[in-house]
Amino acid sequence: MPTETCLHLDADVRQDAIKRLKSAKGHLEGVLRMLDDESVYCVDVLKQVKAVQGALSKVNEGVLRAHIRDHVATAALRGDSEAIVSELMEALKYQARV
Amino acid sequence: MPTETCLHLDADVRQDAIKRLKSAKGHLEGVLRMLDDESVYCVDVLKQVKAVQGALSKVNEGVLRAHIRDHVATAALRGDSEAIVSELMEALKYQARV
Amino acid sequence: MPTETCLHLDADVRQDAIKRLKSAKGHLEGVLRMLDDESVYCVDVLKQVKAVQGALSKVNEGVLRAHIRDHVATAALRGDSEAIVSELMEALKYQARV
Amino acid sequence: MPTETCLHLDADVRQDAIKRLKSAKGHLEGVLRMLDDESVYCVDVLKQVKAVQGALSKVNEGVLRAHIRDHVATAALRGDSEAIVSELMEALKYQARV
Repeated sequence: MPTETCLHLDADVRQDAIKRLKSAKGHLEGVLRMLDDESVYCVDVLKQVKAVQGALSKVNEGVLRAHIRDHVATAALRGDSEAIVSELMEALKYQARV
Repeated sequence: MPTETCLHLDADVRQDAIKRLKSAKGHLEGVLRMLDDESVYCVDVLKQVKAVQGALSKVNEGVLRAHIRDHVATAALRGDSEAIVSELMEALKYQARV
Repeated sequence: MPTETCLHLDADVRQDAIKRLKSAKGHLEGVLRMLDDESVYCVDVLKQVKAVQGALSKVNEGVLRAHIRDHVATAALRGDSEAIVSELMEALKYQARV
Repeated sequence: MPTETCLHLDADVRQDAIKRLKSAKGHLEGVLRMLDDESVYCVDVLKQVKAVQGALSKVNEGVLRAHIRDHVATAALRGDSEAIVSELMEALKYQARV
């Protein structure tokens, strides 16, 4: 965290993220059940795993939007722009592949 | 599935996928515990969710490799190239964002 | 190239790729002209560069489909599956970010 | 652009983007020359096109960093946070695939 100030995730966004992550977890458990079947088809697994990744992307989209709105857009007011921008660029770099 | 032939996910890859997905599920539960804390920081959530997505990408990388080796590379032998190629291209299109 | 056999890009796909790449080059030149303007807005640049990347993705989608159809789906017939699969997985890994 | 205020791309970043885009254009011309060869191999095309996309991603990384630092981090000072955040989230959504 770039400052001593307390930067917290917005409460509503946090609740929404929890709801979405619980749903993603249920989806993941469904994929695990699929994989108990010896005759499972590869492409069905690929699609379901990508669907879980898509759900996780929705979580991150919400968290990212809240972060930019609440912490990045106010950085010049607080005076920690440099740290907050570097941190955000770093976070945007991680990218799921395949 | 493009053919009447039974195309199954390779048994070892399936076991590996199960192991990795269980680990990803544990990671996801960790993120949910993080989110119980009202003072959680956005960027920490972003990073952890991306780490879970990365773990899921590893699952898909293994499944994709097995699929290409066992089912795509043998398509001309079976005579279902057109269907299997279209299906693969479709599966590769889904892409997690943010 | 994994074999001594000659694996060439399909002629029609090659022509289509040339056409699309020329168009992408024209688009890129347009972005360069945009950037001659001192008052250019960042987000307009981001969008245009992403549009060029999208055009390049279309090129790769065509080339990838032809490669999988003509060279990967026939690998078991030729007997070079292992090499061709490793090569494809490697090529799929490179992924543009941001 | 979300405000009446003039938001311009930083001059140094603009010059760097021009330099990188000219280099990407040269690379693209190289791919076009590759494609004049009838015996060009698909995977070589895929790799070169992805390399160009990677170069374009570097351009966007620089432009994005400058935009966040100069325009997003100062949004609360100007009072246009809502517009600037929506615009940024929209720009981040476009994502090259394959």
